[in-house]
Amino acid sequence: MPDTTLPPPVVPPNVIPPRSGAAFRLARGQVLEVVDIMGTQVSDLLAFNADDVREVISNGRTFDYEETLKLTTGNTLWSNRSQPMLKLLRDDAGCHDFLLTPCSEATFRHFYPHQPVHRGCFGNLAEALAPYGIEPDAIPCAFNVFMNVPFDGDTGRLRVDPPRSQPGDVLQLEAQMDLVIGLTACSAYASNGGTFKPIGWRIV
Amino acid sequence: MPDTTLPPPVVPPNVIPPRSGAAFRLARGQVLEVVDIMGTQVSDLLAFNADDVREVISNGRTFDYEETLKLTTGNTLWSNRSQPMLKLLRDDAGCHDFLLTPCSEATFRHFYPHQPVHRGCFGNLAEALAPYGIEPDAIPCAFNVFMNVPFDGDTGRLRVDPPRSQPGDVLQLEAQMDLVIGLTACSAYASNGGTFKPIGWRIV
Repeated sequence: MPDTTLPPPVVPPNVIPPRSGAAFRLARGQVLEVVDIMGTQVSDLLAFNADDVREVISNGRTFDYEETLKLTTGNTLWSNRSQPMLKLLRDDAGCHDFLLTPCSEATFRHFYPHQPVHRGCFGNLAEALAPYGIEPDAIPCAFNVFMNVPFDGDTGRLRVDPPRSQPGDVLQLEAQMDLVIGLTACSAYASNGGTFKPIGWRIV
Repeated sequence: MPDTTLPPPVVPPNVIPPRSGAAFRLARGQVLEVVDIMGTQVSDLLAFNADDVREVISNGRTFDYEETLKLTTGNTLWSNRSQPMLKLLRDDAGCHDFLLTPCSEATFRHFYPHQPVHRGCFGNLAEALAPYGIEPDAIPCAFNVFMNVPFDGDTGRLRVDPPRSQPGDVLQLEAQMDLVIGLTACSAYASNGGTFKPIGWRIV
């Protein structure tokens, strides 16, 4: 019988290097922790039904059912088929975005015409998700963990500010069905306060 | 030679009956007019690249490139491949939504548990778009013409209010590529101030 007086073991996170991505399975009931190891770093998150990848997280369904654009502890991320996919548990930073799509080469050319072009989270997600049969055109708006996108209720204007997340900040998400997860360390200049850092993740 | 001193002929609109939908082609350069014939009626609009229907309007790409959640004259609706699809020209009502997905049977069960279930704009769009090879899972967030969804910049809370559109109000959209358009007369109770009315459209 385990000694329950001991604290649970600390599992070191898997590390997604700066400006790259990963994909993995997350079984129903498992909890994914996304860790901002160094602080001020965004991570784009996608979720697909592992049994049928045409079912995918949907910002519009989520905004509709949760009746808010700002999602935190207690909120659920819903699929395009109106099923719960991920429930948000611990949320240290309390600031995420579900309005914007992952940056791509085209996005870089648009917003950073004088900087080197990068394939962005879109390209990183496309490569990581290809082994699961997910095509680039099937990549929807990501849930952008730690991304700080203020918007104005009167004018609708939005902007991308540096994340508020501190080193070690965690977001926990509990899978509501068997999932394929895509996850990145974001590659866009404005989204991360000008520097690119790794993202950690673990299944707890 | 035509007599240019005469006003242009008035083309009566095609009519989408209450709680139904339609799909049709719109060639690059053509202008689609969506007409709120009786006022206070929403119309969900989708656009697909007619040459490859995997390319589709994207709220996230549009919010990103237009840097606003409120789209009106001068704004463009962008595709998931970062291409311009539709440019907004004349906009009488000045109030539309691009945050929410088309209502479906599941949405009706969620929001109106004591009312008869309807397949909603989702079901109407799925049927109208099927002949173009578009599957239900490929239906993204629609551009919800005349829909009134106020949101709070601080809390993120949103709600669905009756449309502000008056009888005869028009939204003109100019196609930036050859498109397949899906268009509905919205079926949801809250979105239309409690009644269901037709929507008109014409290509000018």
